[in-house]
Amino acid sequence: MTATLPDTIDRAACQQLDRRDPLSALREQFVLDDSIVYLDGNSLGRLPIATAPRVAHLIDEEWARGLVRSWTEADWMNSPLRLGAKIAGLIGAQPDEVIVTDSTTVDLFKLTAAVLRARPKRRTILTEHDNFPTDRYVSAGAAALIGDRTYREVAREEITDSLDSDVALLTLTHVDYRTGAVHDMRALTEAAHRHGALALWDLSHSTGAVAVDLSESEADLAVGCGYKYLNGGPGAPAFLFVAKRLQDELHNPIQGWLGHETPFTLDHAFRRASGMRAWMSGSPPVIAIAALEVAVDLLLEVGMQRVAEKARSLTGLFIQLADARLARHGFEVVTPRNGLRRGSQVSLRHADAYRIDRALIDRGVIPDFREPDILRCGLAPLYTRFVDVWDAVEQIAAVMDQRAFDNPAYGERSFIT
Amino acid sequence: MTATLPDTIDRAACQQLDRRDPLSALREQFVLDDSIVYLDGNSLGRLPIATAPRVAHLIDEEWARGLVRSWTEADWMNSPLRLGAKIAGLIGAQPDEVIVTDSTTVDLFKLTAAVLRARPKRRTILTEHDNFPTDRYVSAGAAALIGDRTYREVAREEITDSLDSDVALLTLTHVDYRTGAVHDMRALTEAAHRHGALALWDLSHSTGAVAVDLSESEADLAVGCGYKYLNGGPGAPAFLFVAKRLQDELHNPIQGWLGHETPFTLDHAFRRASGMRAWMSGSPPVIAIAALEVAVDLLLEVGMQRVAEKARSLTGLFIQLADARLARHGFEVVTPRNGLRRGSQVSLRHADAYRIDRALIDRGVIPDFREPDILRCGLAPLYTRFVDVWDAVEQIAAVMDQRAFDNPAYGERSFIT
Repeated sequence: MTATLPDTIDRAACQQLDRRDPLSALREQFVLDDSIVYLDGNSLGRLPIATAPRVAHLIDEEWARGLVRSWTEADWMNSPLRLGAKIAGLIGAQPDEVIVTDSTTVDLFKLTAAVLRARPKRRTILTEHDNFPTDRYVSAGAAALIGDRTYREVAREEITDSLDSDVALLTLTHVDYRTGAVHDMRALTEAAHRHGALALWDLSHSTGAVAVDLSESEADLAVGCGYKYLNGGPGAPAFLFVAKRLQDELHNPIQGWLGHETPFTLDHAFRRASGMRAWMSGSPPVIAIAALEVAVDLLLEVGMQRVAEKARSLTGLFIQLADARLARHGFEVVTPRNGLRRGSQVSLRHADAYRIDRALIDRGVIPDFREPDILRCGLAPLYTRFVDVWDAVEQIAAVMDQRAFDNPAYGERSFIT
Repeated sequence: MTATLPDTIDRAACQQLDRRDPLSALREQFVLDDSIVYLDGNSLGRLPIATAPRVAHLIDEEWARGLVRSWTEADWMNSPLRLGAKIAGLIGAQPDEVIVTDSTTVDLFKLTAAVLRARPKRRTILTEHDNFPTDRYVSAGAAALIGDRTYREVAREEITDSLDSDVALLTLTHVDYRTGAVHDMRALTEAAHRHGALALWDLSHSTGAVAVDLSESEADLAVGCGYKYLNGGPGAPAFLFVAKRLQDELHNPIQGWLGHETPFTLDHAFRRASGMRAWMSGSPPVIAIAALEVAVDLLLEVGMQRVAEKARSLTGLFIQLADARLARHGFEVVTPRNGLRRGSQVSLRHADAYRIDRALIDRGVIPDFREPDILRCGLAPLYTRFVDVWDAVEQIAAVMDQRAFDNPAYGERSFIT
């Protein structure tokens, strides 16, 4: 499954791994810039070569010539469902369980508010203390808006024991944005179900990087980001999943004309669309959907199994090299060593992480920093090479050997990601 | 102010008007296709020539090369506020009262829910029966979500008398999407204020077409669409206005990380950003914002006063020609004859409107149909010529003279806009 790495490894061995990589041809589908080592594909993915021509065609032909006729003739109207069905193939969902709409934050709100409204006798939203800020903020906000609801955060290891008959929704991020640790989606969903709660999974750091099977996990609800491992471009729209069995029960709280059964009759009364189209609110972001679709097509071509395998190999190599060359500089690998329990990133804890990050960026190695002391190295499997991992570790070691981080210019914090 | 039209007019006179049109140079800034007469710029505006190169630059340079660094280096992070400040200049708002975010529907929801939450003792949302469906659906949905609230629709002429001390929010669309009639924003806002209610204005059919002065009208809240008269492209993001005096009182109910005072510190607790950034939820749609900004810059160049004057002239000409040449075919002009009380459209009522619309589209004239019997002719002032108005009326008259609408192929309804 995951490639076994040799015990001792050098740059040539990494190049050898790249030559044997079944995804190496996929890398050629991206606009590359080998003057940098990009370890931030988990924040903003790289540009697929086919994206710019597709967007140009949409603008120059479909918009400029087709004008308003393109809503039907270029299938703009159906694009959120068409792309949703494709993304379903990356996350083990059925084609009619996913739609592309709004942002991750808005989608989290829609699903959370829908659950609170559908299950009024249950008053608690449960999450973990270390969930991504937006997930926590939006849950707290939805609870406050609807009123008489409790928003509760517990430690990661207390989640299962904190479920009870008052919990309406357990909301978790599948891959932890800081550590890269993966939750056991199936076990936690099952635990939520035992107490009659629904489980909402944020797949922002999962989709396009690790294996996800929403059907097999019996997941209820999910959202995910379009601009990280899906490579949809800055501010790409998000996707939203509702298990078929819940599609009649849960209602989009932001009901707009496009969630109406027949939008263009502009009926007086709101009649909710059947299926996932009910989760649309306003007009779909057609240009951004087209860009995201190009990138999703690339992933579908190779299939998530091979992508997830490469992610495990890349992160495994990084951890092996970090143990060999960075531990002595005080770095602690906080990402799980079990390849099946980590996302496509390796996070290193170091007291000087912020300044090290700045020094690396100045040398053309771009990881990111996460408070308070995490150097986060995303290894996007579609275009990151094994030799990039080697070069990154080499540069981190060099920064430490030369104390290049010890520069007054790196004192003041300014955040880019 | 508005050009006076000669009593008798022919095609040559229309061409003469075009030659004297101070906005005629602006038309050259759009991708044109003179094989059609486009009367649907109020549904999807035309493409500015500068948009495609700007989007290509964003994709090929800022995304592909700048990667995640472009959030600061290309000012992506600030783009919703930067463009909001520009749009403020089109609607008589202060630069720090507008932000570009989400869709019109989501923005309507945010503002409506914020008011309901801030004013819990007032239980009614008031609107008019003929408000645009999304505005009505979203109001009803917000009232139902929060609970113990009343959503009430009244006839246009009953609005003022229906205000009372239970009304939290009066929500209206400034220019009626069907008839093109303009509400008296100042008088209705004042009436709302007399009863202690807030007024929310949907400017979707106003911005870029008619004069709006939110400050002078003492408007509280507003939203507007980016893809109609603003020409931002299919699914362009919307904008949202909150009067400065209300920015501390009203809170975005969809609180995400980008509405946090310091998003990148990823703080545990949510601290609401000050000013309009608090209305951001998820990551901004950077590509779509760039496209919209190009189009807004064109409008700012000529200024809304000249744009609104041309809109009045175009619609005035259309009404004059309709009276002279279409009345005898059973068309009724339902758009107000007072140029200051109509948007940049002329709506004609006719029992066969749907089939006439289909026949016109087949002849390269593209208006749209609105239930039950409205032929809606949008005359986007930035690129519509006086001669286009002449040709449109000519074609409508020809369709009627030849009974071209009386075609079995036009029987079954299919909606494109």
